[in-house]
Amino acid sequence: MSAEDYDALPKTPANYVPLTPLSFLTRTVDLHPDRDALIYGDRRYSWGDVGERTTRLASALANLDIGIGDTVSVMCPNTPEIFEAHFGVPMAGAVLNAINTRLDIDTVAYILDHSDAKVLITDTAFAETVRPALAKLAETSPDRNITIIDIVDPAGPGGERLGDLTYEEFLASGDPSYDWQMPADEWQAHALNYTSGSTGTPKGVVYHHRGSYLMSMGTVVGWGLGQPPVYLYTVPLFHCNGWGHAWTMALLGGTTVCIRDISASGVFDAIADNGVTHFGGAPIILGMLVNATDDERRNFDHVVNAMTAGAPPPAAILKAVEAIGFNVMQVYGLTETYGHVSQCEWRDEWNDLDEDARADKKAWQGVTMPMNEELAVFDAESMEMVPRNGETQGEIMMRGNTVMKGYYKDPEETAKAFAGGWFHSGDGAVWRENGYIQIKDRLKDVIISGGENVSSVEVENTLYKHPAVLAAGVVAKPDDKWGEVPMAFIELKPDVDPETVSAQDIISFCRDQLAGFKTPKAVEFGELPKTSTGKIQKFILRERARS
Amino acid sequence: MSAEDYDALPKTPANYVPLTPLSFLTRTVDLHPDRDALIYGDRRYSWGDVGERTTRLASALANLDIGIGDTVSVMCPNTPEIFEAHFGVPMAGAVLNAINTRLDIDTVAYILDHSDAKVLITDTAFAETVRPALAKLAETSPDRNITIIDIVDPAGPGGERLGDLTYEEFLASGDPSYDWQMPADEWQAHALNYTSGSTGTPKGVVYHHRGSYLMSMGTVVGWGLGQPPVYLYTVPLFHCNGWGHAWTMALLGGTTVCIRDISASGVFDAIADNGVTHFGGAPIILGMLVNATDDERRNFDHVVNAMTAGAPPPAAILKAVEAIGFNVMQVYGLTETYGHVSQCEWRDEWNDLDEDARADKKAWQGVTMPMNEELAVFDAESMEMVPRNGETQGEIMMRGNTVMKGYYKDPEETAKAFAGGWFHSGDGAVWRENGYIQIKDRLKDVIISGGENVSSVEVENTLYKHPAVLAAGVVAKPDDKWGEVPMAFIELKPDVDPETVSAQDIISFCRDQLAGFKTPKAVEFGELPKTSTGKIQKFILRERARS
Repeated sequence: MSAEDYDALPKTPANYVPLTPLSFLTRTVDLHPDRDALIYGDRRYSWGDVGERTTRLASALANLDIGIGDTVSVMCPNTPEIFEAHFGVPMAGAVLNAINTRLDIDTVAYILDHSDAKVLITDTAFAETVRPALAKLAETSPDRNITIIDIVDPAGPGGERLGDLTYEEFLASGDPSYDWQMPADEWQAHALNYTSGSTGTPKGVVYHHRGSYLMSMGTVVGWGLGQPPVYLYTVPLFHCNGWGHAWTMALLGGTTVCIRDISASGVFDAIADNGVTHFGGAPIILGMLVNATDDERRNFDHVVNAMTAGAPPPAAILKAVEAIGFNVMQVYGLTETYGHVSQCEWRDEWNDLDEDARADKKAWQGVTMPMNEELAVFDAESMEMVPRNGETQGEIMMRGNTVMKGYYKDPEETAKAFAGGWFHSGDGAVWRENGYIQIKDRLKDVIISGGENVSSVEVENTLYKHPAVLAAGVVAKPDDKWGEVPMAFIELKPDVDPETVSAQDIISFCRDQLAGFKTPKAVEFGELPKTSTGKIQKFILRERARS
Repeated sequence: MSAEDYDALPKTPANYVPLTPLSFLTRTVDLHPDRDALIYGDRRYSWGDVGERTTRLASALANLDIGIGDTVSVMCPNTPEIFEAHFGVPMAGAVLNAINTRLDIDTVAYILDHSDAKVLITDTAFAETVRPALAKLAETSPDRNITIIDIVDPAGPGGERLGDLTYEEFLASGDPSYDWQMPADEWQAHALNYTSGSTGTPKGVVYHHRGSYLMSMGTVVGWGLGQPPVYLYTVPLFHCNGWGHAWTMALLGGTTVCIRDISASGVFDAIADNGVTHFGGAPIILGMLVNATDDERRNFDHVVNAMTAGAPPPAAILKAVEAIGFNVMQVYGLTETYGHVSQCEWRDEWNDLDEDARADKKAWQGVTMPMNEELAVFDAESMEMVPRNGETQGEIMMRGNTVMKGYYKDPEETAKAFAGGWFHSGDGAVWRENGYIQIKDRLKDVIISGGENVSSVEVENTLYKHPAVLAAGVVAKPDDKWGEVPMAFIELKPDVDPETVSAQDIISFCRDQLAGFKTPKAVEFGELPKTSTGKIQKFILRERARS
């Protein structure tokens, strides 16, 4: 009975080790203690430093009785503290809850409450949000007791202290030789990330060690990361744990460059001064680079690889940014999938296409990354996959080990999200041969005009080709005759005189390139409302279009 | 109680998928069906072809009632059939037992018996071993019934048919749209590899899906494999499943080149004709390349990356092979660790060393690869790690997810191998800073002369510097005065006239470079006995030294 004999061999400490990104840190600290791990202005930490500081952090947390399953919240921009928290908090067995720094008081209070946070490490720059949020929490949950640790960043704008200890004092209280433990179970939670809540109350997305380990491994394979990269963190670390790149850099022994406020000059300086080879960020960053002034630009003589996600980057911007030395790979994912799980893997046969067609392909969301098991486009009603014809709209769904553990304290939403054995993304796309997906719209962003579906993304891509357009958002405007018509909201480039561009100009520009039913019937100019991660807030535009 | 809330989130088909290298195949077949997967002489298969042929193989096996936990043995050199078996056999749920083709009749009979093989796919070239092995098995286990499938390779030397179906007929009987199943448990066995048995009865080393998945991921990270490689299989696929590279190529969508008989001209031709970028093999391959004739050599204008393992490659050969366009990374591992689990990761600071010192470093076995959790050198008595001083000898031990499931039907040896929570390699090494190991010897290869330990590897490295030496093996020779003395067995290069090199020349050469007690006291010339994987069979030399 060979099957039984094969089964008889048990897991032992020698041949089974729970997967965790903390293993990456241990290995790299041992192997490359002197190599640069983290650069932030004039602060510079080696991997040895990171090893010591994160061990101190774990020890200091343990001294507060923080352990397995306790939540530690962090509210700060991309500074060394949040990078370190990505290691030190799980090293204490705890769960890292990185809070979006641009949230309002009520939402921060909600998250601190719902997450059961026991410690909050917060940059003084956000005291004006955090103080009233804590006051609110004290009202609603008077027996909650959150230890506050202040990050006092000399490079920051200052701000009120809220706790008794600074982060550096807290680290100093920790033991640098603390014997922290690897997780005994790879399914153990280590991060809690709240969704942006554009569709209702924020949901707490839980990640586990196994998922983050595989996320890093798969990112290296999918992005072809060979030599240790110098990675610039333009994506906020509070957004899907910065797509897991802190852990990926630990795996590769790479160097991470953090900048507090993302600007074109900040990115160009990091490339020219620190030799940045890779970064990831919303497409809005690409627009910023393309539209940088001569003063902001710096010369560099290597290709910089950028991973972009979020709204599909307009083809015009992709084309322009590649011309100035960037190689862009579009990826796609959600908070629920630890960040990117699809990538637009470039195909050799696309090299022969003309520039526009290539830029068009570049904006596809692409194929499943290696660590995600399956990515498909479904008819959500029938739960049948749609044909790979590039035409039929459906909902993107995925399954794999980098799909969240679930929503914290929300079994109902968790079950709904995983119905039928697939995670339902809520994003609409068409499917093409070889499994490439192309997002046409979030399902609710489809505009239905006279019975025809209009892809708001398609209209936006056209608008981005207009030389005066910096950013564009297209939504449905109720219409008595057609049901809905497309309406465009446009932010002009700073150097454009608003007097020189009329709504009619924009409509004519679109009419030359789009079918009549796809052409915006109304245009409004002004700054666009954006989320903290640079996504245009369509629900606000939708309200405006209705009013 | 946040810990309980985190724990409450369950594994579901959406967020938990057993790790298996079969996922790599599915993804690449879908994504790159037209890309070359496999080149063998004038046979050329795309990934689409491999997808179809392996599905047929799984279906044909299922038709024979082969399923989970059944063993399928394969006896063939590096031809498409064994590459395909690495996918098709586990796709049927079964366990692949790839048999070393150079084994003797008794050992093959033993393996077919002990493995509980139900099917044997065998190249007719080995009929003279397989036929009597099967006859022997019929005697000892008359109720065993093994289905024989013959591989009839037109590029092979012919040989007797032993079964009713050829491999191609067997494939033709399978359904190309067979709905094979991914493993339900990542701990499920999928391969069974017998150790060479140099230390006694061969032991059956069992691999599982999780291990092979992680082996591939870690190899990509450790070896820095970016663009899809063109990989030449010089290591036999029956040796630790060819270090898992068939699965790694599926992960990357790379191309594998197989050659039936490994020769210098075969390797050079594959590089020049098929654009090979990577290969892996025993150091003896490097020697072969260095000593190739002008007729055998081919020009190529890219760097070829070689992963070598086995005996530490002599520094002289490393130096010579790099000079002709190869970049060598020494790795180390055993059958029990799925192949390589340590790699000599190159350090920037070593670039400034002189050529000899660099070649010396290149021969180190190095540091733990990313998928292996820990690698250490222990005092096996006390189970304390030895100091990282480059001096203290100890036993290499490792723990991690790419340590075998265990020895098949041998709980005692399994428990012994995993004693204390670490896998005991049986190999002796010193440990250096940053965790680099350097093998001095298998423990039993240490020569103890007058109370001093002599590393046979050190003496061999010296011998390889002699211009006439092709291969060298050093073992202990019993000695009345010193207990043991080193004795050297030497194979001269083919173009060297044996008359021109005396034992005394060799001894003087060593004496100039080694301490007296390390210098061989006896020298014998002639062809060296080698295992099928190119390792010098020291136990035979040891017998000769004793006689």
